[in-house]
Amino acid sequence: MGWSEAKKRALAMLEDHIKAGRIDDDMLDLLRAINNRTDLFTTSSCSGRIQLYETELPGTKFGLRTVKKWHRPVEVEELVLNGDNLWMAMLPPILHVSARDMRSALLFISTARRSGFKRGGINSAKNFKVNIEVQGTERMDVPLILDRRIVVPGDVLPRVVDRANRLLVRSKVRIRRLTEMLQENL
Amino acid sequence: MGWSEAKKRALAMLEDHIKAGRIDDDMLDLLRAINNRTDLFTTSSCSGRIQLYETELPGTKFGLRTVKKWHRPVEVEELVLNGDNLWMAMLPPILHVSARDMRSALLFISTARRSGFKRGGINSAKNFKVNIEVQGTERMDVPLILDRRIVVPGDVLPRVVDRANRLLVRSKVRIRRLTEMLQENL
Repeated sequence: MGWSEAKKRALAMLEDHIKAGRIDDDMLDLLRAINNRTDLFTTSSCSGRIQLYETELPGTKFGLRTVKKWHRPVEVEELVLNGDNLWMAMLPPILHVSARDMRSALLFISTARRSGFKRGGINSAKNFKVNIEVQGTERMDVPLILDRRIVVPGDVLPRVVDRANRLLVRSKVRIRRLTEMLQENL
Repeated sequence: MGWSEAKKRALAMLEDHIKAGRIDDDMLDLLRAINNRTDLFTTSSCSGRIQLYETELPGTKFGLRTVKKWHRPVEVEELVLNGDNLWMAMLPPILHVSARDMRSALLFISTARRSGFKRGGINSAKNFKVNIEVQGTERMDVPLILDRRIVVPGDVLPRVVDRANRLLVRSKVRIRRLTEMLQENL
C-alpha cells in the first residue's frame, strides 16, 4: 500500500469517526486544514482534556483507570471524588500526523512549534510514511486523593479546578492558531 | 562548520560543564554512551528533577520563577512554602541530541522509546544536523499555594512529596536502561 492509498483509508476512517461524533468539534477545522495538504494526513488526535483517573503513581498506562474525561472546562460539582488514589490531569492537545516525506514533515513540525505545539517531532519513518507526534506544553497532574486521604480540601478545590480550566482554554488557543497558520499557507 | 567540527565543539563544552560540576552524575554514563557513537552527540540534558516554582498558571516560561530544584528525592522539610502561587513539579529526564543524518536519528529515537523516553522526536534538520529531543513520560505539576491559600495541607504533603520522589526514581531508571541499550549495541 502506497502513501496515497494510506491517506485515502485514513480520511475514510476519519469521516466515520466524525459521523459517529467521536471527534471533538474544536479539532475539526484543524484536521481538515492538515488533510487538505497533499503531503500530510492525520491519524489520531485529542483536542486537550481534563480527566479524573485512578492510579497509585501516574506516568504509565499500566494500572491507570480513567474515571471521567471532559474536552471542555468542568464545574467542581461534576468531579466524582471516589477511590483510593484519584488524580486530576489537564492534558494538552495532541496530534498524530503522517507525512509523505521528511521535508513536509519538518515543515509541519516547524509550523506546529510556532503555534505552541512545542513538544514532539518525527517519531519514526517506515513504509513511505513519516510519523509525527506534536503536543502542547500546558499540563497539570494533581493528586486529589492519596491512600484514601483527601489531598485538596473542598474549600480550595474550586481554585485548582479554575486553574485546570484556564489551562485547557489556553491550550485550545493553539489549535485555532495552527489551523490559521496552515490555512494562510495553502 | 561541518558536523564533525560541531561535535568536537559540543564535546569540549560538555567537558567544561562536567569540570564545573554542572552535569548531574546520574547522566554522565548516558552522555558518554551517546557521544561514543560516531553519528551522535549531546547538546543539553537534564536527569529529571523536582522543582518548586512560582507562577499563576504553568506551561509557559514567561512569568515562571524557579524557587528551588533538586535532581534527587527531597525531604518535606526542604520545601520552602512561600509566595502567592507556588507549584511543585516533577519533570522527567530530557535529552537533546544532534545526529549526523536521518537514519542515525531515527535509530536513536527508536532505542530511546524502548527504554521509556517515549515523548519527543526529530524537531528540525538544518546545517547538516538533525536535532532530537526525547523525554520520559512521568510527570507531576501540583499547586501547593494558590492565591495565597494553602492547597495541600501539611498532614498530606508528605504523601504528595513521596509520590514525586517515587516518580523521580522511576524516571531515572530510564536513564540507566537507555545507557545499557546503547552500550550493548556498540
